[in-house]
Amino acid sequence: MRTVYVIGIGAGDRDHLTLEAVAAMNRTDVFFTIDKGDAKGDLAALRAELLARHVTRAHRVVTARDPQRDRTAATPGYAAAVGDWQERRAALYERMLADELGDDGIGAFLVWGDPALYDGTLRILDGIRERGRVVFDVVSIPGISAVQALAAAHRVVLNRVGRPFLVTTGRRLADEGPPPGVDDVVVMLDAVDAFARVPTDTARWDIYWGAYLGTPDQVLVHGDLREVRARIVGLRAELRARKGWIMDTYLLRRIR
Amino acid sequence: MRTVYVIGIGAGDRDHLTLEAVAAMNRTDVFFTIDKGDAKGDLAALRAELLARHVTRAHRVVTARDPQRDRTAATPGYAAAVGDWQERRAALYERMLADELGDDGIGAFLVWGDPALYDGTLRILDGIRERGRVVFDVVSIPGISAVQALAAAHRVVLNRVGRPFLVTTGRRLADEGPPPGVDDVVVMLDAVDAFARVPTDTARWDIYWGAYLGTPDQVLVHGDLREVRARIVGLRAELRARKGWIMDTYLLRRIR
Ligand SMILES: C[S@@+](CC[C@H](N)C(=O)[O-])C[C@H]1O[C@@H](n2cnc3c(N)ncnc32)[C@H](O)[C@@H]1O
Ligand SMILES: C[S@@+](CC[C@H](N)C(=O)[O-])C[C@H]1O[C@@H](n2cnc3c(N)ncnc32)[C@H](O)[C@@H]1O
Repeated sequence: MRTVYVIGIGAGDRDHLTLEAVAAMNRTDVFFTIDKGDAKGDLAALRAELLARHVTRAHRVVTARDPQRDRTAATPGYAAAVGDWQERRAALYERMLADELGDDGIGAFLVWGDPALYDGTLRILDGIRERGRVVFDVVSIPGISAVQALAAAHRVVLNRVGRPFLVTTGRRLADEGPPPGVDDVVVMLDAVDAFARVPTDTARWDIYWGAYLGTPDQVLVHGDLREVRARIVGLRAELRARKGWIMDTYLLRRIR
Repeated sequence: MRTVYVIGIGAGDRDHLTLEAVAAMNRTDVFFTIDKGDAKGDLAALRAELLARHVTRAHRVVTARDPQRDRTAATPGYAAAVGDWQERRAALYERMLADELGDDGIGAFLVWGDPALYDGTLRILDGIRERGRVVFDVVSIPGISAVQALAAAHRVVLNRVGRPFLVTTGRRLADEGPPPGVDDVVVMLDAVDAFARVPTDTARWDIYWGAYLGTPDQVLVHGDLREVRARIVGLRAELRARKGWIMDTYLLRRIR
């Protein structure tokens, strides 16, 4: 039986790797990677560095070209665009698994952060298993997520005592505003400066913001949303221009 | 300047430790632990095992007795009871830091899972810093949480594409029911079988449940809440009786 590891490698800090991840990497025959063909070179660089540092066993790396994702999709079409892209990616993965992995082979995908958080790999592999043309087991190995890197960098706890917190996307926050009854909101995948539109006339919000968390480029801002939001909007534009892309995450905390 | 590490050690699996945690443990002069004086011996055992396996440097372990927490507190008094207990614990920690740590000493608390998730250590240390009698820096080191161990064990993603998820407590879920507009809810700290009261006449929910995640005692149940909830209620009672305590976490996913 083939086995496919989905290994969380952390969201930027190479030392966020777990011992379990290192051990799994050292049982892996073939590492599958996708060439995103864009500015995400830092991610590829982290993967390559982790392999070089931690894998002592003979292994192969197989790279496929990413089926271009329709990034122009507007909100209503987002789920559909993702679905379509996932299908193309599933076909790609299926072919890689069938062609490159022996009958008892162990393959691995190294995924950014934690495989359980806004990552499509597990879902795509589920889909391939359902189609039934390639038979394999899946093992998911957790990794430190960007949310945890954010909390650690700010030395903050995500929840308040006995209270809930929500993890959501920039798109949702922009469209729906802060959810009623939840005073702690973690936001990922924000392409629209959603934090800048949160109403601060009736409530006070603090923001804990972090970009390129865990990397040497890490930038942090913390403060009253009213006071720091213009600065964060500016920083995002500036950093995106300088580096070509930005990855950031933030916690919004309603103070009153 | 004194430094205090708050190190997440994972929620049961010793290999969930990160390389960063191992490195920090090997810079630590004094490990501070609390003797809970109850059935949480497994947690103490994991801590001891991690020290024995990974710390190669001379170090001390200082153990204090836990100021008894008022576990009988009913819901309205919960925050107050926690506050009171936190104050007693803060006094204890302050004394330990002042007495046991040299002026440039490095101390560490090894905390269960991730320090950013339903853990009081960072908050208590903040309080001590504010009092200003002992001066020290805090460094928070993320660890794999029970939520991530749950998702990995079920090979599931916590969110659905582009959608939010909520992390909450059993108490909140029991009191308020599933929050409107959120279809994926992770529940921790459930002492009341809150999942059993979720209405399933108008909506279908799947549950991904896990107890003692990451340990040799791990138990998993997944299915339609209507069909498996009686089994989980039974399992919880049985496991709690057998082991003296239970730690479990679950994801509720609204299907329609
Ligand atoms: C597709 S999601 C993947 C999340 C990943 N699976 C995890 O567990 O962190 C990408 C989003 O994660 C966040 N992110 C990932 N790495 C980050 C980093 N190093 N710093 C800040 N945000 C990051 C950003 O919000 C980004 O839009
Ligand atoms: C006080 S909270 C601490 C959470 C911890 N900081 C973390 O990141 O996982 C304790 C709760 O975490 C969950 N938990 C911790 N360890 C667990 C395990 N090994 N299996 C299942 N649930 C666990 C349970 O819901 C428990 O009530």
